[in-house]
Amino acid sequence: MPPPEGSPSDSAVSRLSRQIEFSLEIDKLKGVLRQTVLLDSSRQENVAEHSWHIAVMAGLLREYAIEPVDIDHAIRMLLVHDLVEIDAGDVMIYDRSRREEMKKREEAAARRIFGLLPADQAQEMRSLWDEYEARETPEARFAFALDRIQPLLHNLNTQGLMWRKHGISRDQVIEINSPICDAAPALWEYVSALIDEAADKGYLRR
Amino acid sequence: MPPPEGSPSDSAVSRLSRQIEFSLEIDKLKGVLRQTVLLDSSRQENVAEHSWHIAVMAGLLREYAIEPVDIDHAIRMLLVHDLVEIDAGDVMIYDRSRREEMKKREEAAARRIFGLLPADQAQEMRSLWDEYEARETPEARFAFALDRIQPLLHNLNTQGLMWRKHGISRDQVIEINSPICDAAPALWEYVSALIDEAADKGYLRR
Repeated sequence: MPPPEGSPSDSAVSRLSRQIEFSLEIDKLKGVLRQTVLLDSSRQENVAEHSWHIAVMAGLLREYAIEPVDIDHAIRMLLVHDLVEIDAGDVMIYDRSRREEMKKREEAAARRIFGLLPADQAQEMRSLWDEYEARETPEARFAFALDRIQPLLHNLNTQGLMWRKHGISRDQVIEINSPICDAAPALWEYVSALIDEAADKGYLRR
Repeated sequence: MPPPEGSPSDSAVSRLSRQIEFSLEIDKLKGVLRQTVLLDSSRQENVAEHSWHIAVMAGLLREYAIEPVDIDHAIRMLLVHDLVEIDAGDVMIYDRSRREEMKKREEAAARRIFGLLPADQAQEMRSLWDEYEARETPEARFAFALDRIQPLLHNLNTQGLMWRKHGISRDQVIEINSPICDAAPALWEYVSALIDEAADKGYLRR
């Protein structure tokens, strides 16, 4: 929807109104639950707080990126990479069948949600999301590794609560999380030792 | 605490262990509740999701900063500005008496929490927090305005739920939120009209 016509000042107000409307809309991400629990196992994590967590972690762990990374750009991507889940919801990363169906729903969600913004900012959001999804830039690959490593750490530190609930195997964990190795091998080395330990303790299916 | 001595590879592992320990520690921010409710009024907001929300909003609303602002730097500040609340908790902004006592608790919290990190990163976190608290840079002033405007918008869009609960007056809202005007006058103009409306509707004490 193009902004309504009018005086420059009317247009400015309309622009700001759309930005505020979007700002209010994204509050809904706080109600979208993930298949990860908080470290105290008290409840499932929501997507908004997850996005915050990995944005902070990206800044802290940037030295482990195997390629030079504009970390501020990676952080901007991480902050908005899951906004489409307001409409599309979150799907367990191990549920491959549903991930295909999800792509269509996420595409529709991107059109609706980013479309709330003025055109230039809708385009900016869309670019960040497309870049993240394509994993073709060092920033997108590093951001993606962070999105994988945080839930992995949560599973490792809650005795595999969600792994056990869903009957996840060690091989599945290795396969799904191997993009960490491509983007940040030192981080992969660290967590893969912990995955082996978790398997030994029976937190993962053989 | 300096990293333990040992081979370079031992030190590298210790550095990463500390970074991971910090990454796990900050999960606790998801359990610290604020005096703001989600827009659907279903529950109080936590500090982690609040930090995410204002980091995204800062990027969107950057054009309204009255001074040139390095927005990525402002976003980095916003992501970590409330980490001390893991130990110190959140205090209602209108509760002036308790805010003095809080400063001491936050100081101790900063030492403990940032101290989990390797020294260089502890210093980086501390600098971001100090800069935010001092409000002496354009980035800190703009970040602070965002930290004010988001709960204001939530109150305005929940019929003043928390204002009414705590008996907050229009004058208090104007005074506490006036830093928005200093950093981003156009945003202030927008919200101050809404504050007047809210007062007319009785959501604020006279």
